[in-house]
Amino acid sequence: MINNIALTGCGNVGTALLELLHEKKDELKEKYGYEYKVVLITDLMKGAIMNPEGLDLEEVLAAIKRDRSFNSFAQAGGSFGELLDASGATVLAECTPTNLKTGEPGYSHIKKALSRGINVTTSNKGPLAVAFDELTKLAGECGASFSYEGVVMSGTPLIDMIKNGLAGCSVLKVEGILNGTTNYILTKMGTGMTYADALAEATSLGYAEADPSGDVEGWDAAVKVSILTKIIFGLDVPVSDVTRIGITLVTPQHMEEAKRRGCVIKLIAGIRFDALGIHLYVMPKEIPVDHPLAAISGATNAVTIETDNLGEVTLTGAGAGRRETGQALLSDMIRMSR
Amino acid sequence: MINNIALTGCGNVGTALLELLHEKKDELKEKYGYEYKVVLITDLMKGAIMNPEGLDLEEVLAAIKRDRSFNSFAQAGGSFGELLDASGATVLAECTPTNLKTGEPGYSHIKKALSRGINVTTSNKGPLAVAFDELTKLAGECGASFSYEGVVMSGTPLIDMIKNGLAGCSVLKVEGILNGTTNYILTKMGTGMTYADALAEATSLGYAEADPSGDVEGWDAAVKVSILTKIIFGLDVPVSDVTRIGITLVTPQHMEEAKRRGCVIKLIAGIRFDALGIHLYVMPKEIPVDHPLAAISGATNAVTIETDNLGEVTLTGAGAGRRETGQALLSDMIRMSR
Repeated sequence: MINNIALTGCGNVGTALLELLHEKKDELKEKYGYEYKVVLITDLMKGAIMNPEGLDLEEVLAAIKRDRSFNSFAQAGGSFGELLDASGATVLAECTPTNLKTGEPGYSHIKKALSRGINVTTSNKGPLAVAFDELTKLAGECGASFSYEGVVMSGTPLIDMIKNGLAGCSVLKVEGILNGTTNYILTKMGTGMTYADALAEATSLGYAEADPSGDVEGWDAAVKVSILTKIIFGLDVPVSDVTRIGITLVTPQHMEEAKRRGCVIKLIAGIRFDALGIHLYVMPKEIPVDHPLAAISGATNAVTIETDNLGEVTLTGAGAGRRETGQALLSDMIRMSR
Repeated sequence: MINNIALTGCGNVGTALLELLHEKKDELKEKYGYEYKVVLITDLMKGAIMNPEGLDLEEVLAAIKRDRSFNSFAQAGGSFGELLDASGATVLAECTPTNLKTGEPGYSHIKKALSRGINVTTSNKGPLAVAFDELTKLAGECGASFSYEGVVMSGTPLIDMIKNGLAGCSVLKVEGILNGTTNYILTKMGTGMTYADALAEATSLGYAEADPSGDVEGWDAAVKVSILTKIIFGLDVPVSDVTRIGITLVTPQHMEEAKRRGCVIKLIAGIRFDALGIHLYVMPKEIPVDHPLAAISGATNAVTIETDNLGEVTLTGAGAGRRETGQALLSDMIRMSR
């Protein structure tokens, strides 16, 4: 069966997905029996293009590079639902920008696709943050798959590991480094740099945004740990209930003291159970240098999952990146096609 | 659908699988919709017992603990094929001892099961070492699944990650610590212990066998890297073609020198491609202390997989253990039932 792909949001990640699909067309068919056409692409800035017979990806990628828009194509008109119907899409890759308050526009896109029995993969944290249960239930009712490998650790397959690799295990505790920007800053501070200098360097490298508060105050990691809690335990813990301490007050003196105790300081996001129930936290913690999380340097992410059957399992890899997140969407699409 | 489980080999691992199944009966049904009966158990020492309606696991586990045999049960007679037919088995967990030369008795068990369309999971490296292609092909022809999460890193889901988590990636290079015994010895030597003292400690803890050559000469890691090469690349590289240097000649002086260079010494098993083709190796290597593999201490295993789409992904976890390997079989059975 040919997979008819619709893509919403053709920014960095959506474009990376198109590049991977184009570059790996033969490899995907040979290794996974995965065949596809891209039948619909919609983007708020670039426009909407559709071809039920399959868009020419070479042409599309050239236009993105040349014009940063789809102005050179005939524009497809109609509501998003009408476009889905007319395109014959069987799978949606949802890559619009994240809105953690409303989940839009991803939330509506995903709902429209799932309700038509169209499989969905998304890298967008917004819809998961606002409507995880509703979308999961809708997928079940409509016989569609709903996957979201890209929302935590981009394409490093943490969510697949939780759902499939660790099948049969109970998760007892989760601890990890889920924000690459702050880990980069702390790694630099470990070499003696001040917080301000390390932040400036992270900003100049494009790791930190102009307003870095989402990263350095721990909000990004808090959202991820809240989503992981839902995925692993089925429990709702809003981001506002995550104990959250950022890295803005960490000094070179703290780094030195930790070092004397044989530790390094990392911004640790965690989920644990205690007498009071579940506890989610994001905070700078001292980690012994011989712990796997201590060796995670730069913009890398890592998560240690403590299980009943296996003890601790740690997965380390890229936590961000356009190609890495495109890979998350691609791997979801291959798995959903099986 | 109820999964009718046959188990061959009821030693440490087979018994651990039965314990997990018994302990988690309700959890498996609730979380994964996985329902089962154990219909057949054969063990060279303990005997063969069968009940198409399902054996009473509480009774079976009590007998193993009490008698170390199935003498208190009526013995099931007939060839293994006849027992499979009479039991109504739909899945086989193959846990007999490893024979790397003949693959027996696992090889015959697996062939008989697959040819009947019965799914197979195994923790036995022997059948994979001698007949990977034949068994994989047979499974395909007979519409059965053939899984082997337990052959490398026990239940730490490396093989599932390679096959499913990383779908869409090409693997460029593999490096890892695949033998817990030697890693334990090297970790101890890192604290100043001699090779002989560290080996004696590993033996007294049950990590090293009476004849430790399989571990310390690198054979165990070489077999694993040869099997991984088959799984990842579909290439046959016999163990005899693996460049293999053990740890017997590593001295405390080597450890000291490595330390001065900011490194630790690890027994690294690897797969890489160079101008001459594929190259498999097991050898002591200096690893920079800030590399994820450097922090892997004691009997833990870890593998770093370098990919085109994601860069390096490292999976760290238990590399051995009866419950951990039982978990490998259990997770395979859950995934095959989907």
